[in-house]
Amino acid sequence: MANLQATIKKIQPLDIMAMTIAEERQGTLTKPPLALGRLEHISIQLAGITGKTLPSFENKVIAVMAGDHGVVAEGVSAFPAEVTPQMVYNFLAGGAAINVLGRHVGARVLVTDVGVASDLSVAVGVRNKKVRMGTANMAVGPAMTRKEAIQAFEVGIELVEEEIKNGLDIIATGEMGIGNTTPSSAIIAAFTGLPVVQVTGKGTGITDSALALKCQVIEKALALNKPDASDPIDVMAKVGGLEIAAMAGVMLAAAAHRIPVVMDGFISGAAALTAYRLCPNVRGYILPSHMSVEIGHKAVFNELGLSPLFDLDMRLGEGTGAALAMSIIDAAAKILAEMATFESAGVSSDKA
Amino acid sequence: MANLQATIKKIQPLDIMAMTIAEERQGTLTKPPLALGRLEHISIQLAGITGKTLPSFENKVIAVMAGDHGVVAEGVSAFPAEVTPQMVYNFLAGGAAINVLGRHVGARVLVTDVGVASDLSVAVGVRNKKVRMGTANMAVGPAMTRKEAIQAFEVGIELVEEEIKNGLDIIATGEMGIGNTTPSSAIIAAFTGLPVVQVTGKGTGITDSALALKCQVIEKALALNKPDASDPIDVMAKVGGLEIAAMAGVMLAAAAHRIPVVMDGFISGAAALTAYRLCPNVRGYILPSHMSVEIGHKAVFNELGLSPLFDLDMRLGEGTGAALAMSIIDAAAKILAEMATFESAGVSSDKA
Repeated sequence: MANLQATIKKIQPLDIMAMTIAEERQGTLTKPPLALGRLEHISIQLAGITGKTLPSFENKVIAVMAGDHGVVAEGVSAFPAEVTPQMVYNFLAGGAAINVLGRHVGARVLVTDVGVASDLSVAVGVRNKKVRMGTANMAVGPAMTRKEAIQAFEVGIELVEEEIKNGLDIIATGEMGIGNTTPSSAIIAAFTGLPVVQVTGKGTGITDSALALKCQVIEKALALNKPDASDPIDVMAKVGGLEIAAMAGVMLAAAAHRIPVVMDGFISGAAALTAYRLCPNVRGYILPSHMSVEIGHKAVFNELGLSPLFDLDMRLGEGTGAALAMSIIDAAAKILAEMATFESAGVSSDKA
Repeated sequence: MANLQATIKKIQPLDIMAMTIAEERQGTLTKPPLALGRLEHISIQLAGITGKTLPSFENKVIAVMAGDHGVVAEGVSAFPAEVTPQMVYNFLAGGAAINVLGRHVGARVLVTDVGVASDLSVAVGVRNKKVRMGTANMAVGPAMTRKEAIQAFEVGIELVEEEIKNGLDIIATGEMGIGNTTPSSAIIAAFTGLPVVQVTGKGTGITDSALALKCQVIEKALALNKPDASDPIDVMAKVGGLEIAAMAGVMLAAAAHRIPVVMDGFISGAAALTAYRLCPNVRGYILPSHMSVEIGHKAVFNELGLSPLFDLDMRLGEGTGAALAMSIIDAAAKILAEMATFESAGVSSDKA
């Protein structure tokens, strides 16, 4: 049985010894020192995460967490809530962007219903872990109870623990949930204290006037629910989302089990920030992917002290940015493991 | 027989009809409009390049062009010239970074000796197309004759034409040549008129004082040889490199045959700028990869009006950045070809 507090307690700092050995090896490979830049840093981080000096990744999972949001009743999203279950079916049929990119990078896409507001019990292939039929409207009260929030975190923890038995060695967080940029902005505003307008964007593509409304709704939800920034579970319960909590749970469990976890875009960022506030050591286990078009994503990177690997003007979620990053991260590990050394290749390492 | 002028004449603008159909299809796929950002733009460009509305890439080649540089006698490089042939043997043995990344992205690495200053005729697996035993020292005279420069361009053209027979459908440019950031900076300074110090960096890792010397050497070479910026072959002959000319030839031939060509780092950038000055239409066929640490790379992007896909602080060359980009480009094509449409997936495309 997954347990949030026990998982947090298990998270250790990165393995410095493995990192030192990996860093020394990078210096012996047939290239000028640091010529592969961030690929080298990633490889060293992967050694620190896994405790292995030559980490390799054969079993990749993209965990797509799905949930609905009562706050869509306020008109904060460009698409209707019915799109959440429709997209779940699209994932199961293999037709969504994340399926295409998952196949491209050799990752399994696992779809979990954490809180879709319709019955998906007959959907073949979905992991049925529904905590409730979508959150309540946070503009009129808390999104969920504290108990439900903990349960949603534990859905993510459970997924990691199950998949480790299936060989999982690297995981990425993705999501589907119409309206979920709204709680993500609320979470980030609650944790950072930044003005809502600085962390709120157009999501899937709302108009300027709808954006103004969205900001008002978030401000109202924060004023009404008064989430306690020093209590991340309170923040998640009052202004969060079921799938967001589950993503944070994935990150915490990945860290507890020394599995690298790749952060996707904005909603993943809100989950990462929550996980980080629950346990700062989780940060070392998180590998960033892209910078989202959503303006609040930058605040997440600043808070975590991380930099994105790339910025391709993406704003889809699902795990799409993380999937592309997974391939770069895998490449970094292969550089460390597979490149020849100056000595083995008979290449002069002395400078002229 | 490869022919530079005939190749340039063959280059056509992108196929607008194919691009229009691809763009329309992007609008029908199960995602908010433009939510995949540059992946969508790349897919449309690939349609324009290939003339196919659903381009796909099964046969990827990374063309590594190798050559030496007489200018290393001036002390412009951190590594001795003997490293060029040593690294060629490393490529052939599969131990270099580009081999690791080539395997990772499913690309064949083809190594061509365009002008290594040692005998590689016994090396198994190298394409022997040596034009001369390295360039002459451009600080005391032209790097090569005009005839040799043309021959080097045609080595690249010939490679593309041969590989099309083997099924090539996307190609990336890479290189190996100790000292080759020096002619690359000279080429970029000659074409752009920018001060040498603004386009010259530390290459594989020279000291500050060696960088000052490197700038002086390039300034001397430009003053002595007076390359004619309106005549790209003259620029290449006087202050260029054999492998750089061959890379430009690859780009021109790829464009002539409607094959996408992925530009790697700084040296690839000098080649791309040369190809662009020979034929502006080549630009549409070039897909950028990363921003190199070499400061002059930015000038190339500005001149070409392109933006890098990512910046991972890389400065290795060989085609390593292009290899990673090739995977992103392939992903973009798969998004266009494999994603479900709103209609086929039964997902609501109407906004709320």
